Amino acid sequence: MVLGAVLSPTSTNIAGWRHPNAVSNAGVSLKDMTRFAEEAEKAKFDFVFLADELCAPDASPGILSRDPVIYRFEPLTLTAALAAGTERIGLIVTQTTTYNEPYHVARKLASIDNLSEGRAGWNLVTSYVTAEAANFSTAKHASNVDRYARAEEFFEVTRGLWDSWDDDAFVLDKAEGRYFDPAGLHVLDHEGDSFSVRGPLNVVRPVQGRPVQVQAGSSPAGIALAAKYAEVVFTAQTTLENALAFTTELRERTVEAGRPAGDIRVLAGTMPIVGETMAEAQAKADELGALIHPEVGLARLSQLLGFDVSGMPLDSYLPDEIPETEAYKSRQALIVDLARREHLTIGELYPRVVGSYGHRTVIGTPELIADELQAWFEAGAVDGYIIAPAFLPDGLDDFSRLVIPELRRRGLFRDEYEGRTLRDHLRLAWPARGAGWDE
Amino acid sequence: MVLGAVLSPTSTNIAGWRHPNAVSNAGVSLKDMTRFAEEAEKAKFDFVFLADELCAPDASPGILSRDPVIYRFEPLTLTAALAAGTERIGLIVTQTTTYNEPYHVARKLASIDNLSEGRAGWNLVTSYVTAEAANFSTAKHASNVDRYARAEEFFEVTRGLWDSWDDDAFVLDKAEGRYFDPAGLHVLDHEGDSFSVRGPLNVVRPVQGRPVQVQAGSSPAGIALAAKYAEVVFTAQTTLENALAFTTELRERTVEAGRPAGDIRVLAGTMPIVGETMAEAQAKADELGALIHPEVGLARLSQLLGFDVSGMPLDSYLPDEIPETEAYKSRQALIVDLARREHLTIGELYPRVVGSYGHRTVIGTPELIADELQAWFEAGAVDGYIIAPAFLPDGLDDFSRLVIPELRRRGLFRDEYEGRTLRDHLRLAWPARGAGWDE
Repeated sequence: MVLGAVLSPTSTNIAGWRHPNAVSNAGVSLKDMTRFAEEAEKAKFDFVFLADELCAPDASPGILSRDPVIYRFEPLTLTAALAAGTERIGLIVTQTTTYNEPYHVARKLASIDNLSEGRAGWNLVTSYVTAEAANFSTAKHASNVDRYARAEEFFEVTRGLWDSWDDDAFVLDKAEGRYFDPAGLHVLDHEGDSFSVRGPLNVVRPVQGRPVQVQAGSSPAGIALAAKYAEVVFTAQTTLENALAFTTELRERTVEAGRPAGDIRVLAGTMPIVGETMAEAQAKADELGALIHPEVGLARLSQLLGFDVSGMPLDSYLPDEIPETEAYKSRQALIVDLARREHLTIGELYPRVVGSYGHRTVIGTPELIADELQAWFEAGAVDGYIIAPAFLPDGLDDFSRLVIPELRRRGLFRDEYEGRTLRDHLRLAWPARGAGWDE
Repeated sequence: MVLGAVLSPTSTNIAGWRHPNAVSNAGVSLKDMTRFAEEAEKAKFDFVFLADELCAPDASPGILSRDPVIYRFEPLTLTAALAAGTERIGLIVTQTTTYNEPYHVARKLASIDNLSEGRAGWNLVTSYVTAEAANFSTAKHASNVDRYARAEEFFEVTRGLWDSWDDDAFVLDKAEGRYFDPAGLHVLDHEGDSFSVRGPLNVVRPVQGRPVQVQAGSSPAGIALAAKYAEVVFTAQTTLENALAFTTELRERTVEAGRPAGDIRVLAGTMPIVGETMAEAQAKADELGALIHPEVGLARLSQLLGFDVSGMPLDSYLPDEIPETEAYKSRQALIVDLARREHLTIGELYPRVVGSYGHRTVIGTPELIADELQAWFEAGAVDGYIIAPAFLPDGLDDFSRLVIPELRRRGLFRDEYEGRTLRDHLRLAWPARGAGWDE
């Protein structure tokens, strides 16, 4: 079973930072962030994961001021610093293809892969938050389809740049004065619809060949891209049935794209709330739910849904007609589905989904949580989980101290790291230079 | 006296990597890079400096393969990793305004300033290497004047983004559920010729208020920008007379721009070749000069001059008519001036200038080198130096072990760090939020 940990200061839960035990300034303390990553490494997680958005949430200052998402490091620089502060754990960082240049992303990720000696992963996103456009001299956020067309070309350029050098190109021959063998240099010369990039990359080939390719899009365009290129897919699923349907479709598309179905690790986002007893766990969950200010809850729900519900009474229901969204189609569908299925009012809905940003929350004893994780895993719905601690440090501590030993007792999770690289941890193949494209 | 150290793997000298003592793979070893930064910190340097270019040098594979410049980490990610690996020394990193977006640069530099607890500096460049354009979907490298117009607006946006938050905006009030005081948030809403950027930055205000602003341009447009905004200026000067003229002009322009002349630290790039005796030092210099392959020497000389001399015989002289360059006007003038003054052939010129990339080389005993550094400093030509070790580790070791103690004996250099931040080391004022611009 694959296990990743979201390293989200101060809390993945939107109100977790208000908990008395939460380290509320961890987001700007490298010491704390390094300590959390070390604890995840000690528990033998496959990786830590750093999310990203390129703007402050598009909300009034009053609402924004209740949201801790701003109070943190920029994730690429933080990942590089964590590469120095950890030794074995994988480091997956989010970079959008919509407001970046492939040369920068290819180079910085290659560098992090080399700084960490082969532990980098790239969570490729296309930016679902429309407010990002206003920070990048762009009048209007592009449509989902256009963003994915750009993303595909972006990824292909990036992959081509990582393949600029043979693995053994650098001979460092002091006597002859030759740094590399010219035969080992491959100039990309890409000319496409969105980019023209000559190359070569001015960084050597990454230790892993290519950083591990991670995606999370669940729209049709997102699934199509993942089927072609992703090695890890994060998904927000709240029922086993939906998770199984998603994974089955993704694996079918993967085979259609000419790849073995097993080439992708599917991981479901999961926020565990662990208690020694069921009552203790439920009390913890209720405590967190109550910490979410309704103003924040409705604002965040509106963002996830892609339409405004902030003016609606807390005891009303979602409208029958759901407006179409360009923002995050699949997430909207998941939330609407949950509300309809359990007949939830707006006031009941937001504490269920905004706390965990739409990911599944599992509340219970270590045995119950292990049961749940085992059930989806053995049903073939997922290859593992990305654990989103409700807040730090407790959320990570509880899972590492109570749930992981239970998973180990069941033979589901490693005792020790076996390899050195993130590819080793995930049992992913090492990509040969030039694999998957015609030079 | 201010002292910085270029952290240039494997060598600042173009052939230094061929020296038997050079660590030739340091550029891809975080362990080695951290060790060098720690050694500079132990010697109490004000900062280490990381240069950058966004392409492989525009040369044939044969020439390129003799040039170590590719074999290294990307500098922004390396700087973040060094923030984790060091405690006191400043970290100055190069970022171009021509192929970047201000939101990214403002955010990543703010993050590095926070990761390092106030030790970040930004060397703002506008990209003089024309080949960078081809990696960024750009048909043609913009002119010097256009690049500086963009740079000025870029810097103003960046500064505005750093000022998005009051220093005390983040109150972290768990009981009230308020992360920050809404009155402490300032939305930029910049609309200009090159950029429209709404803000706010989704990172708190940097520890230093703003990372230290460093520039190196010596063209008229470069000097004009430095006069308005720079806090540190690097310059490549080979004679005291020229250095004094440059600094005098820069300080005049600074006063014209409405700032005190003393607000800028002027630092001259200097490659010291240290020997216990003059003969030993000269032998070291000759050894390094002989390691430069003529093919590499002429190719690099062509790049620095902005026109091709690679076909010319080694015993010929620069032409009487020097072609105009868009690339690096001031560096061309410095090199042509040196060649004319000392009547050097092409074959004599390249070992003098390409090894140190046009910066001054000082060859001699610790006393002689200290004399030279002291003379320019006391003449008011410079506030200090940026030391470019010919190769690592010896170039840095020799200077730290032999020259710095001599500077200390003369009362010219610190024994210990007195402050915590790079601003403290450089005795630069802490910028109040909003200083220098109208909201």
